[in-house]
Amino acid sequence: MDPNASGLLRRLTEAGQSHLIRFWDKLSPDERASLNQELQGIDFQEINVFFKRAMETSGSSSKNEKMDARMEPVAQDVLGSVTRDRGSVKRWEEKGLECISQGKVAVLLLAGGQGTRLGVSYPKGMYDVGLPSRKTLFQIQGERILKLQRLSEEKHKKKCNIPWYIMTSGRTMESTKDYFSRLNYFGLDKSSVIFFQQGMLPAMDYDGKIILESTCKVSMAPDGNGGLYRALGNQGILDDMQRRGVEYIHVYCVDNILVKVADPAFMGFCVEKGADCGAKVVEKSNPTEAVGVVCKADGHYQVVEYSEITLATAEKRSADGRLMFSAANVCNHFFNFAFLKDVVEKYEPKLQHHVAQKKIPFVDQQGQLVSPDKPNGIKMEKFVFDIFQFAKTFVVYEVLREDEFSPLKNADRQDGKDTPTTARHALMSLHHRWVLNAGGHFTDENGTRVPAIPRAGAADPVTDDGIRNLKDGTDLPIKCEISPLVSYGGEGLEPLVKGRDFHPTLIIDESGVHELVKNGV
Amino acid sequence: MDPNASGLLRRLTEAGQSHLIRFWDKLSPDERASLNQELQGIDFQEINVFFKRAMETSGSSSKNEKMDARMEPVAQDVLGSVTRDRGSVKRWEEKGLECISQGKVAVLLLAGGQGTRLGVSYPKGMYDVGLPSRKTLFQIQGERILKLQRLSEEKHKKKCNIPWYIMTSGRTMESTKDYFSRLNYFGLDKSSVIFFQQGMLPAMDYDGKIILESTCKVSMAPDGNGGLYRALGNQGILDDMQRRGVEYIHVYCVDNILVKVADPAFMGFCVEKGADCGAKVVEKSNPTEAVGVVCKADGHYQVVEYSEITLATAEKRSADGRLMFSAANVCNHFFNFAFLKDVVEKYEPKLQHHVAQKKIPFVDQQGQLVSPDKPNGIKMEKFVFDIFQFAKTFVVYEVLREDEFSPLKNADRQDGKDTPTTARHALMSLHHRWVLNAGGHFTDENGTRVPAIPRAGAADPVTDDGIRNLKDGTDLPIKCEISPLVSYGGEGLEPLVKGRDFHPTLIIDESGVHELVKNGV
Repeated sequence: MDPNASGLLRRLTEAGQSHLIRFWDKLSPDERASLNQELQGIDFQEINVFFKRAMETSGSSSKNEKMDARMEPVAQDVLGSVTRDRGSVKRWEEKGLECISQGKVAVLLLAGGQGTRLGVSYPKGMYDVGLPSRKTLFQIQGERILKLQRLSEEKHKKKCNIPWYIMTSGRTMESTKDYFSRLNYFGLDKSSVIFFQQGMLPAMDYDGKIILESTCKVSMAPDGNGGLYRALGNQGILDDMQRRGVEYIHVYCVDNILVKVADPAFMGFCVEKGADCGAKVVEKSNPTEAVGVVCKADGHYQVVEYSEITLATAEKRSADGRLMFSAANVCNHFFNFAFLKDVVEKYEPKLQHHVAQKKIPFVDQQGQLVSPDKPNGIKMEKFVFDIFQFAKTFVVYEVLREDEFSPLKNADRQDGKDTPTTARHALMSLHHRWVLNAGGHFTDENGTRVPAIPRAGAADPVTDDGIRNLKDGTDLPIKCEISPLVSYGGEGLEPLVKGRDFHPTLIIDESGVHELVKNGV
Repeated sequence: MDPNASGLLRRLTEAGQSHLIRFWDKLSPDERASLNQELQGIDFQEINVFFKRAMETSGSSSKNEKMDARMEPVAQDVLGSVTRDRGSVKRWEEKGLECISQGKVAVLLLAGGQGTRLGVSYPKGMYDVGLPSRKTLFQIQGERILKLQRLSEEKHKKKCNIPWYIMTSGRTMESTKDYFSRLNYFGLDKSSVIFFQQGMLPAMDYDGKIILESTCKVSMAPDGNGGLYRALGNQGILDDMQRRGVEYIHVYCVDNILVKVADPAFMGFCVEKGADCGAKVVEKSNPTEAVGVVCKADGHYQVVEYSEITLATAEKRSADGRLMFSAANVCNHFFNFAFLKDVVEKYEPKLQHHVAQKKIPFVDQQGQLVSPDKPNGIKMEKFVFDIFQFAKTFVVYEVLREDEFSPLKNADRQDGKDTPTTARHALMSLHHRWVLNAGGHFTDENGTRVPAIPRAGAADPVTDDGIRNLKDGTDLPIKCEISPLVSYGGEGLEPLVKGRDFHPTLIIDESGVHELVKNGV
């Protein structure tokens, strides 16, 4: 394992990365073996090209002003909406269920992330936000797929399967697989749950030198969720899809507790429109909400990130008073298989990486680990939406945030957004509304029916100012959880709840309707 | 001080309230004097009538269903909007400034509330949310009035005054007056700041018996912000308005840090429309947001509280996809004087009180204080909007929440809504946007310009999932505060900021433009 003899030194030197073995003489045999193996797996020439191309486009000044001038809102003819097109939703849903029954629909989950910002080291999908059932994000999503198969089977009298492709990263693969196996794939057919792994790229300093995070280890990071496409190709996933006859794919991120996996209405809308590719969006809540928006630029659809937009553009409104650029990306995408194949084989390799400046721990000349207090290097990422621009027919489907989007990003903390608490409340609030809309009611401890929009507390302190709290409706939800195995999207609840009064916590699962007494969780 | 001799016992007995002196024999002479004085001030017959009428209408079941059937959205012809009527806003604003210059505009502040839910015992208006300037809500509002006078004087070359009527309660009167005097009325003419006091009503049990909170003290609470009208009459405020020639009154609650006091555009809109009465509203954010909505019922405008509405109605949408009942009340109202006079003299006395069930501490038969753990009685309140129904010409003016509404209700706590932090962030975010729109820029510690919508942190932990935090734009605002004495609504900033780069914290006040270094507050 002499770097000289193996040709490693030559490869490193040619690529200007020979500093990676500068501690070689001080390493133990095991450390040398480990470093050697890691370095053998890296294509340094390719990395250098990635770096060069990424740095060329990043940081070009007045980029925002230029982008602003080119932005156009989503055209009406490619836009569907659950609120404005209510007459069509049922038809789209039936179309989607039909495609599912024909085995044409697959689901692809982006689950490479660890729960670092949540304060845990395991995969985010294994996080339990504290629902009465203690179900994790993975379990909720798996059960939704199972229920959708059952709904489709019931309607079309035909056994069907929705393959579930799960992209993990090097850090999350083993624990994710273990977890699925332990939970028996949530009742899904094991052979239809397919794991694959997203690539990693080394972190680099501003001069293009790869960073060491210890004397014998390169600082590696996943290559962004756009790493999906490369992984689809080099891990045989495209072939697997083709073999199964998959035609339509729903791609989504693991962290959204409300995600309608393989949403038949969304799939049906995209199919009816003959789309290559589509994005589900929610309405941006205010001009400075930090969210990317789907829009058109130079004739192609794309996601413009919030940091690329000027305030003047963010504040632009249409004649109806709404924000002109209001289609907030929620990482819920549709692909047809032919387009996805083209993306993998033709389009994605053309794209350069985005540059993210980061504080990257590194070892100094003495081999000591240093944690910098300002950015000292970059990580290179591609984003899943980078390829929207290549779609010939791109469509956009607007849904309601309160029904479909509540991501889990941060640990619970004061004034926290996107926390376990907000996720849990969003789900319980949705299920509360399902029960009300199916004709059920909730009562308080005195047996009095609770209003649909409950007060902060039946006997909150006197407010002298008359105006009630303008607080979010999900603030203090009625405690109510409905198993995905009972209802995918609110359907089928009338026989269980209509005309009945419930005292929370209400649990509806396959074993029936339960009211938990306090401390009875 | 024999209750028998003074006639008190007879009055109490006739009203069925003689239990109020059941501890008389055990009281000290001082306690007897205090209780006697309190009871002499209460009109028991009137209270009993209030109770009877309030209870008759409260708790009538299926009330919600009936209300739902009667609700109609705000008619287009009485609706103005800062986003949809952009062409008219300038004209309304000029009309408003003209009225101000003629001395026809007054401001009426509802400030009876203590900061109980904020965890302080002083008036809410004295709360300091932690701005760089440490200004309180009262000071911010006072300075806005002063600035508006100056803007009007500049434009119309004529000295003018905006009288500021401040309704306190028994609990807040003295400390409020002291505070204003100590702060020299924020530069306003002392004779144009007029304090008055809202009434109090006793708390009662469900049988109509007045509750004692100690052996010698009745449990009293303010009579709701609708107590305004009674106080306007019996404390000579209407007469004062008439004497000063006030024609248009802006009524608002103390707790909104963004309130545009005497907003010329709102006043001008209402005047141009020939309105008796008007309400400023913001768009309801989602169907279950806990907020009252302005709507029409039986041909009259009113506020329907969130607890009175069914989910089906709350979720109703118009053809454009928006909520049908979206006009969220933010307690910002317009009155013309003639209508206000009619309200005080004719309409308000007709209205019954609302019943609020509360946990009311009381003394038991042994004279021991008991704090009940569920509601044991009621407080009676009227609301300021109860009289909307009497307006002949009622108008509605929709503004942007992020520009005009951020109430302070609760102490800072995890997942808190309407807290000092959210109020502070809302104000700084607004001022940040003012600077950007006036052509200024902000830079980070490395001198790089910060995007208009800043990232959660220039070097936040790697997000593997590509999608950025869909977080509220007010989450981590650029620190920036502009004194109301420099700009009322964003005007006049170009000469100060255009083309300049600022490093936060940026402070703009009458002494100039300052950048605070860290820890430099």
